[in-house]
Amino acid sequence: MLLQNLLSPLPPPGVEEHFQTLLSRSGLRLERIVSHGHASPAGFWYEQSEDEWVLLVQGHAELAFGDGEQLALSPGDWLLIPAGRRHRVAATGPDTVWLALHLAT
Amino acid sequence: MLLQNLLSPLPPPGVEEHFQTLLSRSGLRLERIVSHGHASPAGFWYEQSEDEWVLLVQGHAELAFGDGEQLALSPGDWLLIPAGRRHRVAATGPDTVWLALHLAT
Repeated sequence: MLLQNLLSPLPPPGVEEHFQTLLSRSGLRLERIVSHGHASPAGFWYEQSEDEWVLLVQGHAELAFGDGEQLALSPGDWLLIPAGRRHRVAATGPDTVWLALHLAT
Repeated sequence: MLLQNLLSPLPPPGVEEHFQTLLSRSGLRLERIVSHGHASPAGFWYEQSEDEWVLLVQGHAELAFGDGEQLALSPGDWLLIPAGRRHRVAATGPDTVWLALHLAT
């Protein structure tokens, strides 16, 4: 059985966040996201057509929502972001690892 | 948005592992499993009708497979166990947390 690790190796810090699809099936996609101090561009909002279940595995992050809500995430924190809910990554710490499950609605 | 945490609170150690469904959709179920030194009963094998993507989030575990393979898992380790692949939990450490994504085939 192939054993892989979410936390190692991590890609080196780059200009963009690093996205890796771990598993893809009809109606779902499981993805690792590595952030190194990245944030969404000012004024940019994600407004996705799919639900997203997201877990902060390592590091620290702040999410902002279109209605003004803000959330600070620590390791182990997870939430379900419904399709169409405007959000952006306000801030991340170094070596921040997310697990995101994208689900067709 | 409702923010929950995989690692806290953890249920107290009990006779059985603790299973909590986090998300359930057609063809998939996302589950948290908390183990405190549990192992599958001697001679017991899981032989599931669904694929299982599993991540060790915290703690330590050993998996054994029907063909004799054994794997020691550390935090961040993940694997895909195909439907029908016989396996058992040979050992777990205290406060061990898994994330399991069960997928219809």
